[in-house]
Amino acid sequence: MRWHHDCVKKTAPAQFPILPELADRWSPVAFSPRAVESEKLQRIFEAARWAPSSSNEQPWSFVAATSDDPEAFERLADCLVPGNAWARKAPVLALSVARTVFAGTATPNRHAFHDTGMAVGNLLAQATAEGLMVHQMAGYDVEKARRNLSLPANHEPVAMIAIGYYGEPTPAQREREERPRTRKPIDQFVFSGRWGKPLW
Amino acid sequence: MRWHHDCVKKTAPAQFPILPELADRWSPVAFSPRAVESEKLQRIFEAARWAPSSSNEQPWSFVAATSDDPEAFERLADCLVPGNAWARKAPVLALSVARTVFAGTATPNRHAFHDTGMAVGNLLAQATAEGLMVHQMAGYDVEKARRNLSLPANHEPVAMIAIGYYGEPTPAQREREERPRTRKPIDQFVFSGRWGKPLW
Repeated sequence: MRWHHDCVKKTAPAQFPILPELADRWSPVAFSPRAVESEKLQRIFEAARWAPSSSNEQPWSFVAATSDDPEAFERLADCLVPGNAWARKAPVLALSVARTVFAGTATPNRHAFHDTGMAVGNLLAQATAEGLMVHQMAGYDVEKARRNLSLPANHEPVAMIAIGYYGEPTPAQREREERPRTRKPIDQFVFSGRWGKPLW
Repeated sequence: MRWHHDCVKKTAPAQFPILPELADRWSPVAFSPRAVESEKLQRIFEAARWAPSSSNEQPWSFVAATSDDPEAFERLADCLVPGNAWARKAPVLALSVARTVFAGTATPNRHAFHDTGMAVGNLLAQATAEGLMVHQMAGYDVEKARRNLSLPANHEPVAMIAIGYYGEPTPAQREREERPRTRKPIDQFVFSGRWGKPLW
């Protein structure tokens, strides 16, 4: 791992080789206040746009705010739990939102959160390719987000998302940032033919 | 678009340029029976492994079966709705599964489906890089999948996933396969500071 604003490497210790845009993604807490270029934001949301979805419903939306619009930024930052105050330093905050019913029929869309997650998966890969860091948070006030951002009915706040360039961690942040990335081994979640029997 | 088993291009008409692994992904119905190399399957599930998740919970699992194990394959194929019978020709079927409670506390994990979607997003990007096609389906019998694959409590079937190489479409399939890929314009789902105000 290198401490440099433009080059922070914390590549996944993958058992099998994977795309660098997937291996190099991680979720920091030390963001630089440096603004994100509009072209980069356009490309990461464009990436989200092309995710697949059940019946091509595209149930995802994003409400974003940049720190150069303090009033809008505060409507998002205001929802963060105190433990996520680090995210206020990021130059972009966004809330992912899922429409929980199909637009055409108003029946529940069982895959609304799932498909929103796939769109965000695309966004993350594109962001990593752009040299951007992204950190999603479940730690925010869902009801406050709904109110602050005037979400319509049948739309559910999903995750708060900090986007930006890597910054200099404070001494208190450094331990967390240096912690190795860990995952379950593949035989604990990929099964063959029935639950619990490892594929490999 | 070119009709060739190893090279089917249906690149997204993206408004802003995005990674080829995202732009070139689409969901065909014409699969070749050609087997998928184990190394490629390992890499696509490894890609899923490194997705982020709320509290690093990694709520996703996959139950996969290859057509060379007909009994296991049938336990998955048996769940498909008639309209998805095309998926029986794919050499690999898998069910994505979300654990709906946190392992440590047994409290509901609001992001279980979302985080499973992010893991699948990684899988899709890696599969595209490997020259594989993936088509997910909501059209399957959820309760039958739960029984056929002996899913434990607090685990929910998410999507049925066909994985393989591209095949030759039947005349009846050709119209669907040639249909252009469409998405909402970006100003309909990326907002600035509050719901409904386009960021661009």
